[in-house]
Amino acid sequence: MGTGYLIGNSNLTEVVSKAVDSTVFPIWFLIGAALVFFMQCGFAMVETGFTRAKNAGNIIMKNLMDFCIGTVVFVLIGFGLLLGEDVCGFIGKPGFDIFTNYESFDWSNFVFNLVFCATTATIVSGAMAERTKFISYCIYSAIISAVIYPIEAHWIWGGGWLSEWGFHDFAGSCAIHMVGGISALIGAKILGPRIGKFEKNKEGKIVKVKAIPGHSLTLGALGCFILWFGWYGFNGAAATSTSQLASIFVTTTIAPAVATFVCMIFTWVKYGKPDVSMCLNASLAGLVGITAGCDVMDAAGASVVGIVAGVLVVFGVWLLDHVLHVDDPVGAVAVHMCNGMWGTIAVGLFATGSVPGNELNGLFYGGGLSLLGKQIAGMLAVAAWTAVTITIAYYIIKATVGLRATAEEEISGLDAAEHGLASAYADFMPAPAGNSSMASTVNTQDYDAVVEKDTAVPVIGNVEADDKTALYKVSILCRQNRFEELKEALNAIDVMGITMTQVLGCGTQKGNATRYYRGAEVDMILLPKIKVEVVISRVPVKAVVDAAVKALYTGHIGDGKIFVYKVENAVKVRTGEQGSDALQGTAEDYF
Amino acid sequence: MGTGYLIGNSNLTEVVSKAVDSTVFPIWFLIGAALVFFMQCGFAMVETGFTRAKNAGNIIMKNLMDFCIGTVVFVLIGFGLLLGEDVCGFIGKPGFDIFTNYESFDWSNFVFNLVFCATTATIVSGAMAERTKFISYCIYSAIISAVIYPIEAHWIWGGGWLSEWGFHDFAGSCAIHMVGGISALIGAKILGPRIGKFEKNKEGKIVKVKAIPGHSLTLGALGCFILWFGWYGFNGAAATSTSQLASIFVTTTIAPAVATFVCMIFTWVKYGKPDVSMCLNASLAGLVGITAGCDVMDAAGASVVGIVAGVLVVFGVWLLDHVLHVDDPVGAVAVHMCNGMWGTIAVGLFATGSVPGNELNGLFYGGGLSLLGKQIAGMLAVAAWTAVTITIAYYIIKATVGLRATAEEEISGLDAAEHGLASAYADFMPAPAGNSSMASTVNTQDYDAVVEKDTAVPVIGNVEADDKTALYKVSILCRQNRFEELKEALNAIDVMGITMTQVLGCGTQKGNATRYYRGAEVDMILLPKIKVEVVISRVPVKAVVDAAVKALYTGHIGDGKIFVYKVENAVKVRTGEQGSDALQGTAEDYF
Amino acid sequence: MGTGYLIGNSNLTEVVSKAVDSTVFPIWFLIGAALVFFMQCGFAMVETGFTRAKNAGNIIMKNLMDFCIGTVVFVLIGFGLLLGEDVCGFIGKPGFDIFTNYESFDWSNFVFNLVFCATTATIVSGAMAERTKFISYCIYSAIISAVIYPIEAHWIWGGGWLSEWGFHDFAGSCAIHMVGGISALIGAKILGPRIGKFEKNKEGKIVKVKAIPGHSLTLGALGCFILWFGWYGFNGAAATSTSQLASIFVTTTIAPAVATFVCMIFTWVKYGKPDVSMCLNASLAGLVGITAGCDVMDAAGASVVGIVAGVLVVFGVWLLDHVLHVDDPVGAVAVHMCNGMWGTIAVGLFATGSVPGNELNGLFYGGGLSLLGKQIAGMLAVAAWTAVTITIAYYIIKATVGLRATAEEEISGLDAAEHGLASAYADFMPAPAGNSSMASTVNTQDYDAVVEKDTAVPVIGNVEADDKTALYKVSILCRQNRFEELKEALNAIDVMGITMTQVLGCGTQKGNATRYYRGAEVDMILLPKIKVEVVISRVPVKAVVDAAVKALYTGHIGDGKIFVYKVENAVKVRTGEQGSDALQGTAEDYF
Repeated sequence: MGTGYLIGNSNLTEVVSKAVDSTVFPIWFLIGAALVFFMQCGFAMVETGFTRAKNAGNIIMKNLMDFCIGTVVFVLIGFGLLLGEDVCGFIGKPGFDIFTNYESFDWSNFVFNLVFCATTATIVSGAMAERTKFISYCIYSAIISAVIYPIEAHWIWGGGWLSEWGFHDFAGSCAIHMVGGISALIGAKILGPRIGKFEKNKEGKIVKVKAIPGHSLTLGALGCFILWFGWYGFNGAAATSTSQLASIFVTTTIAPAVATFVCMIFTWVKYGKPDVSMCLNASLAGLVGITAGCDVMDAAGASVVGIVAGVLVVFGVWLLDHVLHVDDPVGAVAVHMCNGMWGTIAVGLFATGSVPGNELNGLFYGGGLSLLGKQIAGMLAVAAWTAVTITIAYYIIKATVGLRATAEEEISGLDAAEHGLASAYADFMPAPAGNSSMASTVNTQDYDAVVEKDTAVPVIGNVEADDKTALYKVSILCRQNRFEELKEALNAIDVMGITMTQVLGCGTQKGNATRYYRGAEVDMILLPKIKVEVVISRVPVKAVVDAAVKALYTGHIGDGKIFVYKVENAVKVRTGEQGSDALQGTAEDYF
Repeated sequence: MGTGYLIGNSNLTEVVSKAVDSTVFPIWFLIGAALVFFMQCGFAMVETGFTRAKNAGNIIMKNLMDFCIGTVVFVLIGFGLLLGEDVCGFIGKPGFDIFTNYESFDWSNFVFNLVFCATTATIVSGAMAERTKFISYCIYSAIISAVIYPIEAHWIWGGGWLSEWGFHDFAGSCAIHMVGGISALIGAKILGPRIGKFEKNKEGKIVKVKAIPGHSLTLGALGCFILWFGWYGFNGAAATSTSQLASIFVTTTIAPAVATFVCMIFTWVKYGKPDVSMCLNASLAGLVGITAGCDVMDAAGASVVGIVAGVLVVFGVWLLDHVLHVDDPVGAVAVHMCNGMWGTIAVGLFATGSVPGNELNGLFYGGGLSLLGKQIAGMLAVAAWTAVTITIAYYIIKATVGLRATAEEEISGLDAAEHGLASAYADFMPAPAGNSSMASTVNTQDYDAVVEKDTAVPVIGNVEADDKTALYKVSILCRQNRFEELKEALNAIDVMGITMTQVLGCGTQKGNATRYYRGAEVDMILLPKIKVEVVISRVPVKAVVDAAVKALYTGHIGDGKIFVYKVENAVKVRTGEQGSDALQGTAEDYF
Repeated sequence: MGTGYLIGNSNLTEVVSKAVDSTVFPIWFLIGAALVFFMQCGFAMVETGFTRAKNAGNIIMKNLMDFCIGTVVFVLIGFGLLLGEDVCGFIGKPGFDIFTNYESFDWSNFVFNLVFCATTATIVSGAMAERTKFISYCIYSAIISAVIYPIEAHWIWGGGWLSEWGFHDFAGSCAIHMVGGISALIGAKILGPRIGKFEKNKEGKIVKVKAIPGHSLTLGALGCFILWFGWYGFNGAAATSTSQLASIFVTTTIAPAVATFVCMIFTWVKYGKPDVSMCLNASLAGLVGITAGCDVMDAAGASVVGIVAGVLVVFGVWLLDHVLHVDDPVGAVAVHMCNGMWGTIAVGLFATGSVPGNELNGLFYGGGLSLLGKQIAGMLAVAAWTAVTITIAYYIIKATVGLRATAEEEISGLDAAEHGLASAYADFMPAPAGNSSMASTVNTQDYDAVVEKDTAVPVIGNVEADDKTALYKVSILCRQNRFEELKEALNAIDVMGITMTQVLGCGTQKGNATRYYRGAEVDMILLPKIKVEVVISRVPVKAVVDAAVKALYTGHIGDGKIFVYKVENAVKVRTGEQGSDALQGTAEDYF
């Protein structure tokens, strides 16, 4: 019988079960990490879909770089700060074991924590989308992944003071989502809104919040589905028993489903229609909400988390738009910050010992205020840490390389400005200014600040006298982004019916840097312009020409041209009226 | 040696292997469930890609709600009906263990059965796409997930009479796909076809089936790939040994690959070209076909299943289009119903004991007719249950909230009508009516029923007498959806060459409700219009104007305007002819 | 104690651990295979996104068929050649065990090797995209999957001479990626470039490389993320211990992240802007580079692999474009061939015994030149095998069914030509020729070879004498693909300001075969045309008309029409000049 022992059955079960667990869960842990990596794809698709086509390449690039820059700095410093030997409960000791001692390096935990870290960083790109300089974003991304996230995550998961204290955040409602969401809020606030998002009155007070629709709801939806799918890895990867994992799957399913359902009902009641993109946000909100407590809540707790998340996300979007006037294009603050906080607090309310492997009890399950207090205190500590450090980071960036793209870059799109990319969708005709991307330029107050605008030169000589009963067509070729001003100028002189066509002008404008696509030069000879046509009779041609020149003049090449044609006759289909009679009526009646 | 036993090696192997299996397979079971969840994404992408852009948000929302509403009702009632204590072999006893007894709740089975249930529901959305009211779809979705699916699934998987009887449906060719497919067929039949799908002659007989191409083949393909990927979880999740799982992977790979290959050949021969979207459907058809028998068939059986599926799916699409005249935009009936039935029957033909873990034998493997008989009988029972209950459900919905969107809503698109969403692709220029979305309006019979159409008012006064040798351009601004009528009217008076341009008209039409995007108001000032231009000489201007007015008149604001210009000269490039000579020839010769 | 043994603890651990491993890793192996299957989706999206919309259906179909045809031939012959009984170290013995002896078939290895095989095949479709005949591609795909790949993979993984010899390629930098990449290079070379890719001077020397942007950067990015996600399965599936798997995850994460980061810096410096699509390629390059040595390199080695890959991919794209003049639309050669080679060699440099489960040491880790020599020699052998066999295959295809689509098919797009698909994006307005798809036709040399071009017929009679001070608008309706010639012709006579509008012409052109979508006829009545407008004064109308006729004339129906209008007046906004003065200036000044 040598060195062996006789073993009893119970003993055997334990030995076997240990052996099994020590192989099975590490593999699931890695599969989970791969799923969390895939969430990068989800974030990229959500953020791209919910923003405009002219920035699609830029937002893709930012998401890609969150992971890639994040990996570089996490290797160099972040991982050590997070999981290195604890120093005073505050930080881990940085080190280079990954290079010097690979043999006994903790490979699994490195990968797992890296993908979590990248998630934190990538939340911010959505809120700061469409106006942040690329270089500045790269710097931000390096800072959060190298220092800000690793240190607070060390507190919670790396053996730091919060983990010692009993603060519970299983998969990161607080450590990841709230931190990302706070960084998003502060970043978006410091940046200021996109041009055209808010309409101000003469006193500079915001009087209207404008919608700037994203360019692909289907991409956005794809991203949400991918995120939800990946979230089973996000919440489940660290499970240590099959029953715990199964319960995590239950809560991770119920919370987002309920949140989405509630959001549908809520937006239906509030706005008259069930809002698609808000419901997609609500799914994510439910997922964020259940992340901290996925392992300590039962189905009832998950349902309540979902119900609150489904309303909270709508409230959060409204709050930013209408109260704080912070422009968050994809709803990152509402989803991640609001619901990250809610999820962290919810642990203190709904944790219950009936969940397999859990012994924590929240307020509503007889646990008193102890856990709730820790959750709130811990959350505030992490929030304070994040707010202070990220603010410092943003202001340093702002003071050095600058944070925001120029207005010209923003209007033309960051794809062109930052990446020399003519279009992320080269084979499709962009929608005309006015319906969508125009939303960025209608705000003439903002725009006037951008373009140096002198008084328009007067038209040389008189436009030939009109025959008062004759009909004329005035055809105006101009820049897309001047349409709104032109329209207002024409309305002001009672020109009601305006037809706009997208055309391409052939020529080369100065200042158009050579563009490269994969190292080959892009021919860019056709410039998108608009042709605005009005047919007039009682309004004098001269008035139209003068109004147009005034609205369009900037003194730069590319200001436009105006052509005047005779029209033989006009007929209004609805009334059968002819000639100048056909041209009367209100704008509604024009067509 | 206390309470222990001395154990033999064989005994040990068994104990260990049990311990391993009891940890490994539950985790794989949950991973499989996550993959099945991801299939929701696949369905959403397939259905969105294969339908029109104007309904993209709506179809996304329906797919999302299938899962979310499904979760809510499955928690409340469906899960109990499916897996609760068996009552007479017919239903499970509903219960609230998920809330009252979470500690010993069957978490894994809940998640797994929930994602399967949602799959059933979501199959239907594709077939009923582009014309079903959103509220009605939500109610349908709740009913199938709460009652119809759980009860028949109880028969097959929950300990009900079919499972007792020996009916075999491993992963749901019958329980999921056929049930979804039958519901899809009945739903699409009751709804009626999309406007423009079928062209009728004067007797009301359908004389032509029109294609209504989907708006993104790449999204459709993406969805198919995601579905195939997820199907490894769908078919494999419930495996209980590694050899069984490996064999399932073999059959789940061979059947769809063969089906796609065969479909390519078949459509190539039948239609002259290999049809891309049909081949994508064929992949799904092969997957549906192998689902029931993935665990009992070998590679040969899977190949035959695939061969039949690849042809059957083309036949199914043809049957619905050309014989049944049921409009199924995405081919859900052909894929899920036809191949669900085929897969269920195929078990009775090709089950073979040579497959690991299987003891069933089908007709071709010496099993006689016994299994085949059970498969057919069981399938018919489930089909009857589904047909009866879903028909009742649809008629109740129809009689109360109504089933179908109004024709106006359908023509403008459900995104706008149901969700206040101006466009799911705000930054892209929609294709002009006529090539694609026009397909929904060319059918003037249908359209006339929509728009109240009085006799057009006569044009007031005469259009000024033409100079018979002069050339005129008549430029007609009108609604996109009147183009087909206008074109026919112009052809009727021998105007051959028509040029159409998409333009945007500036104005506000009454009845345009305020639209919200994420709670902020959407400015919607530019209405898409078309400009139709003809240059004429021998055809009098008056004839053109009269024909146009008649074709366009509806009596509503927005009917359009007509402008007449003089043309100095015209040249036909091919012949060098000038003036009115340049304008002669057939339509083919116009350009 | 019967037949049992008393077992010692160490013994027990071994027994248990074996039992665990024999269940856990086979399941992970299959999960990995599913992830590799999902990479097919990634390839399809990358290749579709990086090519033009008019070929989207075709490239999807080719990717789909790679897998489906691949499965059919792999079942029939490939699997046997790969894993059948070794014959002389060169090939496996083909067999039909999958049909005749399913009971003891190696199901797992079949699935796993099949998905790997399909990966090899699919790499090529990107490089040969947009111009390869569909039937020819199918034949190519069958040959590589049936014979070429299985034989060299047998050498490396199937017990052949390279595996005996100690050549190390864990997951296929050489066996898969280099083989696919070499096939891609030779295929693209034999095919020749896409029309419009290279601009030649009169001696036929290439003087300019033109960019042909892909139609959806977001689809391309989606594909890259999916590929990266799937790569954890690709590299990790064959791991046999948890520590080995964890280390593989580390290297598979670091190499692509570093490559992407380095590529960003490198393109930023080299081209002035960080190139988005190149960075996406770099991620893949890093993944390809680490594939051979993912199990033998540590973090430092993976970093170096990544650094080189990030530069190498840019170099590879440049080399093909500017030196070899081989047109590889998606960068497949740079990614897969260059980095496949680099990864294979890197094993001989950076393999280190500090990696769990590895005993190989490369040059820089004290292993001397032995391993490096084997890696290089083995790589060259596989490269030679591939180059010879694939070249024979291509030439046989070329000599029989032909390899390349006709120029007309290429210009109109393979979707229409090969699949009767009017558009993969039926609801979107295509961008006008000139900016994107025009890139394929601007090269008039190429185009002239396509269209038979006689001397244009003279314009009959004189265009009426101009009033020298009057303004005229000449409006030219013509084919999209003649725009570039027309523009040049107009520039040559000093017409500077050109406005182009996309219009649709109503008519039917001969030769338009009936198109089917899912078996239903597609109405195709509107042909895309362009309207080019110039307003002139000092340039005579006759000169413009003559120049236009000459540029547009081909003698075919559809050559176009020209209309002349009087313009009452013109105003240049920037200067206020009127009349013919408003029309002067350079092209830059036109607008």
